[in-house]
Amino acid sequence: MTRPTAAILLTGSELLRGVIPDRNAAYLAERLESLGFSMRRTLMVGDPLADIEGGFRELAGAHELIVTSGGLGPTHDDRTVEALAAVAGVPLELDEAVLARITGWTDEVAQRMGFDRARFDAGNRKQARIPRGAQVLGMAGTAPGLVMEVDGSAVVVLPGVPSELRRLWQLAPEHPLLAPLIARAQPRQRLMLRTYGIGESHVADLFEQAGGDPDGVETSICARNYEVEIDIRSTAEGEAAGLQLWQRLQADLEPHLFATDERPIAEIVLELVRARGLTLVTAESCTGGMVAAELTAIPGSSDVFAGAAVTYSDRLKHELLGVPEATLEQHGAVSAETARAMAEGARRRLGANLAVAVTGVAGPGGGTEEKPVGLVYLHVSGPDGEAERRMQWGGTRHDVRLRATAAALHLLRDQLATSS
Amino acid sequence: MTRPTAAILLTGSELLRGVIPDRNAAYLAERLESLGFSMRRTLMVGDPLADIEGGFRELAGAHELIVTSGGLGPTHDDRTVEALAAVAGVPLELDEAVLARITGWTDEVAQRMGFDRARFDAGNRKQARIPRGAQVLGMAGTAPGLVMEVDGSAVVVLPGVPSELRRLWQLAPEHPLLAPLIARAQPRQRLMLRTYGIGESHVADLFEQAGGDPDGVETSICARNYEVEIDIRSTAEGEAAGLQLWQRLQADLEPHLFATDERPIAEIVLELVRARGLTLVTAESCTGGMVAAELTAIPGSSDVFAGAAVTYSDRLKHELLGVPEATLEQHGAVSAETARAMAEGARRRLGANLAVAVTGVAGPGGGTEEKPVGLVYLHVSGPDGEAERRMQWGGTRHDVRLRATAAALHLLRDQLATSS
Repeated sequence: MTRPTAAILLTGSELLRGVIPDRNAAYLAERLESLGFSMRRTLMVGDPLADIEGGFRELAGAHELIVTSGGLGPTHDDRTVEALAAVAGVPLELDEAVLARITGWTDEVAQRMGFDRARFDAGNRKQARIPRGAQVLGMAGTAPGLVMEVDGSAVVVLPGVPSELRRLWQLAPEHPLLAPLIARAQPRQRLMLRTYGIGESHVADLFEQAGGDPDGVETSICARNYEVEIDIRSTAEGEAAGLQLWQRLQADLEPHLFATDERPIAEIVLELVRARGLTLVTAESCTGGMVAAELTAIPGSSDVFAGAAVTYSDRLKHELLGVPEATLEQHGAVSAETARAMAEGARRRLGANLAVAVTGVAGPGGGTEEKPVGLVYLHVSGPDGEAERRMQWGGTRHDVRLRATAAALHLLRDQLATSS
Repeated sequence: MTRPTAAILLTGSELLRGVIPDRNAAYLAERLESLGFSMRRTLMVGDPLADIEGGFRELAGAHELIVTSGGLGPTHDDRTVEALAAVAGVPLELDEAVLARITGWTDEVAQRMGFDRARFDAGNRKQARIPRGAQVLGMAGTAPGLVMEVDGSAVVVLPGVPSELRRLWQLAPEHPLLAPLIARAQPRQRLMLRTYGIGESHVADLFEQAGGDPDGVETSICARNYEVEIDIRSTAEGEAAGLQLWQRLQADLEPHLFATDERPIAEIVLELVRARGLTLVTAESCTGGMVAAELTAIPGSSDVFAGAAVTYSDRLKHELLGVPEATLEQHGAVSAETARAMAEGARRRLGANLAVAVTGVAGPGGGTEEKPVGLVYLHVSGPDGEAERRMQWGGTRHDVRLRATAAALHLLRDQLATSS
């Protein structure tokens, strides 16, 4: 029995032209694969009606499930529903129930904002016209999400706004039209290994040495967030072999392995800090608050993360963190000595047990022969002592800052994991 | 004369399945459109050879330029070059010059890292095999980027790593095989309006009232970073009409308009601060350093941005920023009073003329009936006085934090722009 196939159709000229980056494909694909669908392709087309129709015609009949994003709005360049009707060969019909819901919503907005409610009429009527035979999955603001069968494919039509797409997508797997596909879908066993500090091709070597993919197992090795992730997916037949491969690689990768699940490194750090009953602060120069931002992105971080001093100027490194002026003068702001003084100062001045400090040259300017762009010093100061790193990276300012953020979190993890 | 058409082929099962999000399509599309190509579609397929071949077969001949990303690495699931050769109907041949370059590079890595240099042999030979007739555009690490004609289309083969793709892409427009296309490409006039604090459909209304798109003009209206951007592109024939539309909308959108170019809001703020000869700091609670991170993402920010106090705990709000304990007790950490005290404290304690403070309930926990998730207070304190906002948003923790970051930067801009 083969897994049901799925494809994604992204619509929008602003996406196609790169004016805004897509934020839906990866989400949808991950959800579809988790449900047990086999993702076959993702196609992005512009707003012209003929292009969206062309996309539908290519995908309908060829894949069992098609999920579209975008083109449901009230404006002239929102044409997904019209294209769907054309490809299905059915007329668009005004859905009075949908119109009532949309109008109720826009009336409320008009009243709250002091707009003339008639301003919304044309847009509302446009959005309430749906292809004959389509079913309303739910509303995302004034846009109805739809489900419809076209050429034997189940088509799920979702809005382009990521938060609205996510909310409506959650209703789709329950829809009767998708039920037969969901019943046939076979979620694969997924085993994961996440490493830091080892290159992708070195990991690929170890994978080959371990014999590569056994039958029923599909492994992907990829770099993300400066980590290398090994993702082993097994069908029911391949589960035992997949588990064996995972165990073998787990042993081979041991010094670099830091997780076997998807928790962000910031969450792993916070959990280790919490388990030790510590509190954490950061002292940041070149990362400018990015380490703190990653940590506070995790819900519930406030119980162990107290705050950060972003000391971009030398003056603030001295005044806020107590880095001695002599240290700054003798060694410079980008030095192991300053990184250490920042971390120790952060512990003391911000009143925490554990601190990580980052100082470096993010570029593009500010580099010297002795201290080139990409040079970053990290320092962790905690109850188990000190840990430090000197890193030298290539890449843009953005790359260097992201790399330094990841390195700071991994240095914290190393220190907490080895001492616990 | 019509513009030459272009399509993008993204390869990689990890992309297709949503394990990692694509970071190349928007970059390439924006570059292609800027050069005057007409982007027709972007297709994403997985690693299987047949899928990449299928993608090439669909696009080759149908579009004048095809740019691919990914699948050039040394591992078993990097198959783009093999697929290209198959579709072109030519053999893969070892390119000795490429092999020498790759080997030189891996020998260096082997020596530096203490690896056995033979470890790289198989991967190197794989990467040095290129389709007969393909030309090497340049090297990205051990991966050669290629240019080749297939079925009358110019095909540019680039690596998947975003920084390497960007570096190699910059060589492509100069390549002789692309010259005839570049000569025919017609960069369109692009006029932009960027607004904050007005909804997408309200902007669409104003656009319709202005008469919509004249001949030769194509307008897109889209929300990005909580701004609404109006992008007016005109062919040579439509330039005057495009300019007129831009001027009309500029007048209509005036209270919300903040830029007519692509500079990030953080850069606009920094330039205003610099022009006034001020220094800037941030005091952040729920944004956890994100405002500082945005500001420091801009090269050269260090001349006006001094630093930030991320005060996640009430204790640090008091100790680091001098927020009176009575204020925290009476009004709570999420209040207009605390936001004001944070901003004033940041100016005083961090020694700057201008400060913005953010405090709010990012969620998902921590909300109350009186202070629900999504409630955020902003306060700017500067030489021209005070400005404050109370915002209430829906959405996830991530959304609320991003919205608050954007709102803080826009409040700074408003204050600086109206007082200058």
